[in-house]
Amino acid sequence: MANLDSVLACLDLNLDRSLERLSALLRIPSISTDPDYAEQCRLAAEFLAGDLGAIGFEAAVRETPGHPMVVAHHDGPEGAPHVLFYGHYDVQPVDPLDEWKTGPFEPVVSQMPDGTKRIVARGSADDKGQLMTFIEACRAFKAETGGLPCKVTIFLEGEEESGSPSLNPFLDANRDELSADVALVCDTNMWDRETPAISTGLRGLVGEEMVVRAASRDLHSGYYGGAAQNPIHVLAKILAEMRDADGGVTIPGFYDGVEEPPESVKASWRALGMSDAAFLGEVGLSVPAGEKGRSVLEQTWSRPTAEVNGISGGYTGKGFKTVIAAEATAKVSFRLVAGQDPAKIRAAFRSFVEERLPEDCSVEFHPHGGSPAIQLPFDSPLLDKARQALSDEWPKPAVMIGMGGSIPVVGEFKSRLGMESLLIGFGLGDDAIHSPNEKYEMTSFHKGQRSWARILAALGAR
Amino acid sequence: MANLDSVLACLDLNLDRSLERLSALLRIPSISTDPDYAEQCRLAAEFLAGDLGAIGFEAAVRETPGHPMVVAHHDGPEGAPHVLFYGHYDVQPVDPLDEWKTGPFEPVVSQMPDGTKRIVARGSADDKGQLMTFIEACRAFKAETGGLPCKVTIFLEGEEESGSPSLNPFLDANRDELSADVALVCDTNMWDRETPAISTGLRGLVGEEMVVRAASRDLHSGYYGGAAQNPIHVLAKILAEMRDADGGVTIPGFYDGVEEPPESVKASWRALGMSDAAFLGEVGLSVPAGEKGRSVLEQTWSRPTAEVNGISGGYTGKGFKTVIAAEATAKVSFRLVAGQDPAKIRAAFRSFVEERLPEDCSVEFHPHGGSPAIQLPFDSPLLDKARQALSDEWPKPAVMIGMGGSIPVVGEFKSRLGMESLLIGFGLGDDAIHSPNEKYEMTSFHKGQRSWARILAALGAR
Repeated sequence: MANLDSVLACLDLNLDRSLERLSALLRIPSISTDPDYAEQCRLAAEFLAGDLGAIGFEAAVRETPGHPMVVAHHDGPEGAPHVLFYGHYDVQPVDPLDEWKTGPFEPVVSQMPDGTKRIVARGSADDKGQLMTFIEACRAFKAETGGLPCKVTIFLEGEEESGSPSLNPFLDANRDELSADVALVCDTNMWDRETPAISTGLRGLVGEEMVVRAASRDLHSGYYGGAAQNPIHVLAKILAEMRDADGGVTIPGFYDGVEEPPESVKASWRALGMSDAAFLGEVGLSVPAGEKGRSVLEQTWSRPTAEVNGISGGYTGKGFKTVIAAEATAKVSFRLVAGQDPAKIRAAFRSFVEERLPEDCSVEFHPHGGSPAIQLPFDSPLLDKARQALSDEWPKPAVMIGMGGSIPVVGEFKSRLGMESLLIGFGLGDDAIHSPNEKYEMTSFHKGQRSWARILAALGAR
Repeated sequence: MANLDSVLACLDLNLDRSLERLSALLRIPSISTDPDYAEQCRLAAEFLAGDLGAIGFEAAVRETPGHPMVVAHHDGPEGAPHVLFYGHYDVQPVDPLDEWKTGPFEPVVSQMPDGTKRIVARGSADDKGQLMTFIEACRAFKAETGGLPCKVTIFLEGEEESGSPSLNPFLDANRDELSADVALVCDTNMWDRETPAISTGLRGLVGEEMVVRAASRDLHSGYYGGAAQNPIHVLAKILAEMRDADGGVTIPGFYDGVEEPPESVKASWRALGMSDAAFLGEVGLSVPAGEKGRSVLEQTWSRPTAEVNGISGGYTGKGFKTVIAAEATAKVSFRLVAGQDPAKIRAAFRSFVEERLPEDCSVEFHPHGGSPAIQLPFDSPLLDKARQALSDEWPKPAVMIGMGGSIPVVGEFKSRLGMESLLIGFGLGDDAIHSPNEKYEMTSFHKGQRSWARILAALGAR
């Protein structure tokens, strides 16, 4: 353990410099969903490939039809396992911009009244801060020992926030190169500030955009109101019918294949001691809005959902305009659990909408990503080693939890490369990812680096 | 009639110059609902006051807390009636801008394949083109006869498209100055290209903006989906419940006081020979979407409605964002018929929404204008004279019709000044007012001027 101790000391000593490197990355507005930021996405990829090259990886920016990937390789000791680290360098859009207290791409370190520090910027927690924890761990190992305890491949994506259109073809085309003994995916949260977590279940995702059209142009609501179809009403009615009064989803076949988690799993979730009020209170809510009779952990970890993520139609500026819009749009997403097939859910949703379209209306669909849920095996030796390494670093032992969000890449690693994933991340529930004033705790950044050093050492140990 | 003939000849001779004056007015982007265009609204008012002064009116731009009014006076012969002409110089916003084929504030005259010409610009039909028909008729009378056949007051508003917040206080404060024997309101349509119309019934309007809020910030739909209230769903459900399956409005008390038009009136509407298919076909629709069992003329002239004019919430940009929005907004308007009280309808709507708000949600309302419907008497001698004058000008005799749109000022003229209005306009159903590529037929502009000359002569005749 002498090596590990010096690596940990090196990380402690170089925290400020690692923060400078992260800040440089955070300053690049790599918003993948907006084509206007394509060049910035490329810059972020080049920055990371350059940094990995400087550490001693064989690193390259790899082209795709969309934003590029970064792939970097480094050998390990004879007989040591091969791990593939995954993160993503792209970020979410920043609107509503006026709710940011500092520029989203001008990272600042704020000290809170309790003395803790946080890094505030878009992408600080999702996922630039997280992916840098791993890279810093590798840098320290190289500096202190001249090598790494495992064979390491680093694989960084630039389209995670925009449906990962290039991921599957890239995995298929580079199957041998990217197949490792296990993937280490760093895009998730701790259980709380003191308790690290390994996520063993992840919901899948199906995204759909629908555009409902009626008249051939916008109409004056005085002349036509009461006689012309209003696509906003059509849309509102369909979306309202998609959920029943008890919070369930009414799309036929939606729950096909969905199973209840074993009672032992539900019991372990109850043992985490998370009340509905605590979970929701943090964001100003109090009552679980989903399926009746289920806790928020059940609702978000074990049950599928349908959510409207965006809606627009007609006049939405200041003031008022008495118009009947020619079209209205909604962006809808479904979170899936094990047993649900994304393609079937998408088709069932489209049928549900089409069956409800009144005369004179048409609908157009645009798919935005689709991935199945996954459920990791609980009995892997690698999982045990990682769990112990995390427990050594943090005040409380690591726990195994579910996750409401989707990390499509984990399903693809399994189905395309036959590779299981360990989902280990250092985010916190109040990091405000996808929201204004996103932050990453300095503790997450620092102890995250130390955690990866411990995990690499543990996985590499004979 | 020698005088009238020379006035009509003068209008024919000066059509090009009148078009230049209209174009100058159309180039001013006087969008009243958007505060960014306040200065442009003032410019339009100054343009008109200047033009009226040049003709020989005593004209002034009159301040209000909002956009200014234009008021102009001209004497008439001893014993001639006093008429007040009303129009509005403000226009609707221009979005969606990318659907305009030419700049909305760069008026052009296009010649159609059938040889007809049209003036294309925002406000060409609603209402700058229309109000200039009256001003040009006055100009020609002055040029040819040195005077006007009636005492004329011209009253031009700059807030008609944004709820007329300053109108009522202004009418109250200038009651004596603005009270005339009859108002001539030029903001309506012909029955068809050959048939002029006088509108004898107008729907009222109540506008409401509602903002539904849930969580204290935007949420990640993976972490919170299935547990957190989604204000877009809340909004969609309330809007969906506002209408029943037969096209009726479900708000309690909504139809209180609403009466069926007399059978004789319905028969006269049927005699107009307007089929549902023809009314709707023009805008790409085929089936009346309103209350079942009623023709489109009944639906738009005699029945109240509820329409969503705009909706927005969550991510509405390009691509996709898996967010649960903190708030969602809808702009809703109600068209009222005789017997409905705007204040009661507004209160009933608010109660309807509040009763349906789930836990953890709040709602905020913003009123946007409210005016009762009006029904003009059919037996006025002024109406008979105007009808005959219009019938003399156009290929077919003038008809008396209902109107689905609202012209709040007509109700205010009646309730505050005790003044009836004759609603005479030269717009056409396909003018695309409130939509991209708004146009005004050159025939409307030209024969509209001639119509007003005839009407002024007829009203002034002893």
